[in-house]
Amino acid sequence: MMEGALEGLLIVDLTRVLAGPFCTMLLADHGARVIKVERPSTGDDARAYGPWYGGKSAYFASLNRGKESIALDLKDPSDRRVLDALLEKADVVTENFRPGTMARIGYDWDTLHARFPRLIYGSASGFGHTGPFRDHRAYDMIVQGLGGIMSVTGEPGRMPVRVGPSIGDLAAGLFLTTGLLMALVRRGRTGQGSKVDIGMFDCQLALMEYFIGRYFATGEVTGPVGSYRPAIAPPFGVYRAADGPLIIAAGNDKLFRLLCDALGVPALAADPRFAGGEARKDHEAELERTLNGLLAAHGVAAWCERFARAGLPAGPINRVDQAVVHPQTAARNMLIDVDDPDVGRYRLVGTPIKISGCPDPATRRAAPALDRDRDAILAELGLVGEEVHDERA
Amino acid sequence: MMEGALEGLLIVDLTRVLAGPFCTMLLADHGARVIKVERPSTGDDARAYGPWYGGKSAYFASLNRGKESIALDLKDPSDRRVLDALLEKADVVTENFRPGTMARIGYDWDTLHARFPRLIYGSASGFGHTGPFRDHRAYDMIVQGLGGIMSVTGEPGRMPVRVGPSIGDLAAGLFLTTGLLMALVRRGRTGQGSKVDIGMFDCQLALMEYFIGRYFATGEVTGPVGSYRPAIAPPFGVYRAADGPLIIAAGNDKLFRLLCDALGVPALAADPRFAGGEARKDHEAELERTLNGLLAAHGVAAWCERFARAGLPAGPINRVDQAVVHPQTAARNMLIDVDDPDVGRYRLVGTPIKISGCPDPATRRAAPALDRDRDAILAELGLVGEEVHDERA
Repeated sequence: MMEGALEGLLIVDLTRVLAGPFCTMLLADHGARVIKVERPSTGDDARAYGPWYGGKSAYFASLNRGKESIALDLKDPSDRRVLDALLEKADVVTENFRPGTMARIGYDWDTLHARFPRLIYGSASGFGHTGPFRDHRAYDMIVQGLGGIMSVTGEPGRMPVRVGPSIGDLAAGLFLTTGLLMALVRRGRTGQGSKVDIGMFDCQLALMEYFIGRYFATGEVTGPVGSYRPAIAPPFGVYRAADGPLIIAAGNDKLFRLLCDALGVPALAADPRFAGGEARKDHEAELERTLNGLLAAHGVAAWCERFARAGLPAGPINRVDQAVVHPQTAARNMLIDVDDPDVGRYRLVGTPIKISGCPDPATRRAAPALDRDRDAILAELGLVGEEVHDERA
Repeated sequence: MMEGALEGLLIVDLTRVLAGPFCTMLLADHGARVIKVERPSTGDDARAYGPWYGGKSAYFASLNRGKESIALDLKDPSDRRVLDALLEKADVVTENFRPGTMARIGYDWDTLHARFPRLIYGSASGFGHTGPFRDHRAYDMIVQGLGGIMSVTGEPGRMPVRVGPSIGDLAAGLFLTTGLLMALVRRGRTGQGSKVDIGMFDCQLALMEYFIGRYFATGEVTGPVGSYRPAIAPPFGVYRAADGPLIIAAGNDKLFRLLCDALGVPALAADPRFAGGEARKDHEAELERTLNGLLAAHGVAAWCERFARAGLPAGPINRVDQAVVHPQTAARNMLIDVDDPDVGRYRLVGTPIKISGCPDPATRRAAPALDRDRDAILAELGLVGEEVHDERA
């Protein structure tokens, strides 16, 4: 029987919506036990976000598969006893409240570290727990704007656009996961827990490294880059086949020759306007017209097949309905099924982290109904029969 | 003396360019020792990518700070002895060659696992090591196109654009880091190494979770989302102040009332066209005109200050030169200095992972010159005086 890489770890998860739940989803996908502690009555805000599978939020269902749920009122003394008993056993506690919230309810890092020295504390917030902006509110789009990623995304000469997915939240969730695992490795050596403090804004700067490095080295402030990779010689970007756009990444002379061969015009590679990266940069518009003229002979799929045979990096701009049926998607187990006892079967995105010797199941347990695991958790903690707040009473 | 979270770990790093080096940069930033094994003569391709600090690639300098370098010809028997001796001591080996390359030179996972059962093997490739597309070539932009992220990024009704930063590579680097740390936690429990197999394409699907979930739940194929968050009631997007664009994220009634107060028009919140999220959705264009009219009274900075005082999430669309001078950037140690013995001092982006009890230095050691650490590494391995290939001979 194979075990997940994180088998045996207990995560007490106070996070809501996206950045935090994305992190604890990754931990749960790889074998950690995640107990989601939710606000009574409403639970995680994401439970109310459409669209829906039956009565269940698709958004919530995806980010919380494989987790357990208990509803606790953190101002109620008997519920606090339950949380205390959970923290006693936990390896990691996670939260994405605004800075200061955990201190107000008596569960901040300093307090918890004194009580549970091995416990690791993970926090994701808009600006982190230090610095002059720590108390400012941030959403995904606010940090996409502040950190610079919007300023380089969009068509040259037009208004910047946001990155489609919520990269402000997702990057913070990924860096939080990384930080928590680093803290687990550290604890293996030192026996001590630590606090991992992730600011969404910091994570955006980390993703902008290339453009910031360019700015410090040259003073150049990059604007929206469109569909091209500005530092690389063409052809490297989006061109037009008979039935739609096609990405070609042939940024060096060798790949350009392969491309000319595959297009059936080997002589083009020796054309003085296009021989060498500098020449192609100088005649970029002409090159684009020439290539689009040749590409008009066939559709995207035909060209992609031909280019793949030639070993040339090229591909379509897939919509979601096309991405999910790409042959590699199923082959890599990137779609998984959930049999949800509440609303039936649906399909979610799998984990991109493939670890040998560990399971990569094609099904996952459903995201829990609010407070679903209360009885089992209380029994396990030996709190059955005690005076504990019951959400369902 | 504080230690990094990963102190004591040895990473033998065969990766080049971006996804792999971004991963091992994160590991080095947090205390792991990273020995970069490079091709003789030219080394990592990124050493040749402009722009430059003096004679040093800014791109390379950023991704390889704090690492050591040794040049090894992996076809040369004496150099292979050096690599073998390094692997004997290593905790992790990383590579981002095309699948099959490591097997051809005799350093694939199966071979290494048999020889070094505790060694963890990390790979990042375009499509991973399994599935029908495993041998296809991919670059960042190819997987941005294939996985769907481009299809939701850009202005509605216009051609999709790429995400400005190389999110295809960066996401793969982050998921590889996460996977390697999971494998380290697993090894702490089982004593066994494992292989972490990351495909850039898989990582793109993981980032597209929201749109894929939406598609499976409703059949809706989302197109480029522009600057708005389609599922949230307005005002939630980009508006226009006197001197430029301004992001306002006031997606619920409470925040909309705060906004109307801050704009000096509290009665607007009760206007029947705008009272409630549904009404605001139905009158979105009118709301935008109304807000832009009011916002024209002041500049972005003045509004941001006023909105921050009101506790309202809002912010500018910063360019890189603006993002790096945001007060939070310095306060969170997100810019670090490097004193490079070769080309002098320059500035890089710091780590967004803040771990208590661990150093977060404001300076880092420079990225190494090619083969800089050969003598020290050979001496440490007890290979001095033996017949080993010397790049500089």
